[in-house]
Amino acid sequence: MSSLPVSLQTLIDQLSRFPGVGKKSAQRMAFFLLKNAREDAVAMAKAIIDIKDRISECSLCHNIAENDPCTICSDAKRDHSTICIVQDAMDVLAIEKTGRYRGLYHILGGVLSPLNGIGPNDLHIDDLMPRLDGIDEVIFAINPTRDGETTSLYLSKLLKAKGVRISRIAQGLPMGIDLEFADELTLTKALEGRTAL
Amino acid sequence: MSSLPVSLQTLIDQLSRFPGVGKKSAQRMAFFLLKNAREDAVAMAKAIIDIKDRISECSLCHNIAENDPCTICSDAKRDHSTICIVQDAMDVLAIEKTGRYRGLYHILGGVLSPLNGIGPNDLHIDDLMPRLDGIDEVIFAINPTRDGETTSLYLSKLLKAKGVRISRIAQGLPMGIDLEFADELTLTKALEGRTAL
Repeated sequence: MSSLPVSLQTLIDQLSRFPGVGKKSAQRMAFFLLKNAREDAVAMAKAIIDIKDRISECSLCHNIAENDPCTICSDAKRDHSTICIVQDAMDVLAIEKTGRYRGLYHILGGVLSPLNGIGPNDLHIDDLMPRLDGIDEVIFAINPTRDGETTSLYLSKLLKAKGVRISRIAQGLPMGIDLEFADELTLTKALEGRTAL
Repeated sequence: MSSLPVSLQTLIDQLSRFPGVGKKSAQRMAFFLLKNAREDAVAMAKAIIDIKDRISECSLCHNIAENDPCTICSDAKRDHSTICIVQDAMDVLAIEKTGRYRGLYHILGGVLSPLNGIGPNDLHIDDLMPRLDGIDEVIFAINPTRDGETTSLYLSKLLKAKGVRISRIAQGLPMGIDLEFADELTLTKALEGRTAL
């Protein structure tokens, strides 16, 4: 649109790079910034730069962190004999929100995906091995996708060779869903994973 | 969540201030920035500041603009005998996208809303009047809400007193909708506004 100021169009283009943000949402976001005070825009711009300046990766678990090791790895109150393996840092957030896990994490940084050329060397698998000393249990919390399953299988072979106890988080019906709307695979997993009452 | 770095939490809080962006979307957006290159984040931060520094309001039509008067008001190729009255700058964008309007605009900056204490003096009505010299037609493209209708009525009385020709954009069935799903009011307006074939 010719009448849109260049700087506004630039911002809309930038904002629509966000995942899940289309042109229309980006436009609404840009107008929101336009309407608000300059300090608000400055605060947002600063917050964006700050995460790039302050946040790096924990050298142990590869979680995002402002310090190295991260707050979880360096927390003496957590259970250092359990490691939960997840795909990325957002999965850590999700599990932490439950408040029911007190062990450590290891972030793979992705899953094996031969079709996309992602092999074991592209993931943080090598440096998982030295962390296994003194570990009682490794919990797999990898997404139940095809590539996720492949990754779980690959890792379980590696870890079993090291004699580590492995478990995976349960698959089954999500809470609050109507059984009739569950897909066949989920229902199959739910049946297979049935527990005694 | 205790394990979330402060700077990341700050950014998530900032992003979730955007209209239509919840905690979860803000989180996904923040992680997107984390994963991308620093230059990308800098470009976005700069774009945010830039609109505050560069964009102001056209003193004639109150549209957003990098120059005053704006590109529309100062465009000699446009039809300077027609003014379209809209609620805010996003409405200008929507109309410009159709590519079917070549006149000027006047942005009210809102609509009359006695319940919210918004009266004629809170809108850009006073400075619409001097713009009416040499105007053939004023088109109302104000949202068909209750407050919008009130505003149209108020303005039409003012403008008729000045002897200006007034029209309003058509109300009726939106394109692609099934008649059975249209609400009664829309259908009523569509019937009232029927045109001869």
